[in-house]
Amino acid sequence: MPYQPEMTDAGLSPIHAVTALDELGQVRAVQVAGEAPLTLFVDERKIVTLMTLGSYPEALAVGYLRNQHLIKALREIKSVQVNWETETVKVNTGDKKIGSKAITSGCGQGAVLSISELPAIQLAKVTIKQSLIYALLRALAQYNKIHRQAGGVHACALCQGVEILAFVEDVGRHNAVDAIAGLMWLQDWSSDDKIFYTTGRLTSEIVMKVAHIGIPVLLSRSGVTHKGIQIAQEFGIILIAHAKDQRFLVFNGDVIFDACPARPR
Amino acid sequence: MPYQPEMTDAGLSPIHAVTALDELGQVRAVQVAGEAPLTLFVDERKIVTLMTLGSYPEALAVGYLRNQHLIKALREIKSVQVNWETETVKVNTGDKKIGSKAITSGCGQGAVLSISELPAIQLAKVTIKQSLIYALLRALAQYNKIHRQAGGVHACALCQGVEILAFVEDVGRHNAVDAIAGLMWLQDWSSDDKIFYTTGRLTSEIVMKVAHIGIPVLLSRSGVTHKGIQIAQEFGIILIAHAKDQRFLVFNGDVIFDACPARPR
Repeated sequence: MPYQPEMTDAGLSPIHAVTALDELGQVRAVQVAGEAPLTLFVDERKIVTLMTLGSYPEALAVGYLRNQHLIKALREIKSVQVNWETETVKVNTGDKKIGSKAITSGCGQGAVLSISELPAIQLAKVTIKQSLIYALLRALAQYNKIHRQAGGVHACALCQGVEILAFVEDVGRHNAVDAIAGLMWLQDWSSDDKIFYTTGRLTSEIVMKVAHIGIPVLLSRSGVTHKGIQIAQEFGIILIAHAKDQRFLVFNGDVIFDACPARPR
Repeated sequence: MPYQPEMTDAGLSPIHAVTALDELGQVRAVQVAGEAPLTLFVDERKIVTLMTLGSYPEALAVGYLRNQHLIKALREIKSVQVNWETETVKVNTGDKKIGSKAITSGCGQGAVLSISELPAIQLAKVTIKQSLIYALLRALAQYNKIHRQAGGVHACALCQGVEILAFVEDVGRHNAVDAIAGLMWLQDWSSDDKIFYTTGRLTSEIVMKVAHIGIPVLLSRSGVTHKGIQIAQEFGIILIAHAKDQRFLVFNGDVIFDACPARPR
């Protein structure tokens, strides 16, 4: 049994029912994604306010601290207490130094590293089969529940072979990645044999986070930026973007073409 | 002639040519969006590093400071100097107090206001005609250039009637909104008679920014969160989401249904 901090289990129901007028002027019942502020305290010190769907608030807090390099191992965390009345998550480490580090991050508006400053990360050298990509995309099509019902969210999934170990949706691309990073620590999952899937765009910060988590394969339904490709090349991450239906584009790494797409371009 | 700070004109060419392997294993020439770090200094003090496509770096810096409430009027800014060699934009105000304010923001990972703390903003009371929505969507379809060529970006547009005054694409939803806010100051454009369009999701922070800029109509190709709707209701912003082809959903405000959609649902 892996180490577990003392934790609440305070996931929110992520969907709200509202009404809207459609283009025919008719009232329609519509479901929209929730979005709640969650202010993260570490040892009583305020770190950041995250706007989140709230499905996995404890994992989000843990993964945020992991991806911001504020916590180096799960054992440093004694407890994670979410309270939606006060819109707070309190992480206790008992280590006064951790809460005193200052951080900022966000969607292209935060602390970033230049290519020359990238940390040394050793990722597993792997290949991926086209047949696995297709099998995964078929499996993932069954998920994406909130997006289909309500829109307004991005999804990330942690996959091992064709198995989807975790599927997290959130209002921000970053939160979903952070929550997966938190779940991986809490479940004590290895990273070398995993594939990271996201519906979001592969900007440099997302590729950096996946490298930091140690996952060697990154698959996205959306596009990629030039710096995202550069970082993938630097770390040797297999980077596949625009993966949808039978199509995809490999921007870095080895894919074994063992499955003929049903419909040629 | 409106007041202009002394400014560089250092917009980057936003598209990079790369090669990728497609699903048939064939090499394809592909264009991807650029993404460059731009560290913002105000009076020599470092404020934030923005990851940006870089098309409108001066307007982005001005709009960021506007939307973070760090600068109250364009006249407070004496100069805006972008230098891509050093990946910096230096804003000079001559006011030592401004640079000393601390800020964080980002894609659901930054400083946010709760509904009860919302500032008092008076927006113009307006209505919008369905025929104008359709005319705008047709006009906007001509834009979206980088997205079509390269993917990986979000677009925002500032519209007046069916005229598109500004169209900005960037790697982050927030950057594109900020750059439009900067352009509005630099061009001395009023806000009451404008419509704000975005391809991105209407999360609370985006709706807040548009309210802060003073624009009474917000139109998105994507979805909306529950808090985004609440903020629109609070400020009286017309909020239209999922606007695509002939379809849309009105979540707040008055739309005059004067155009029958060509294809019923």
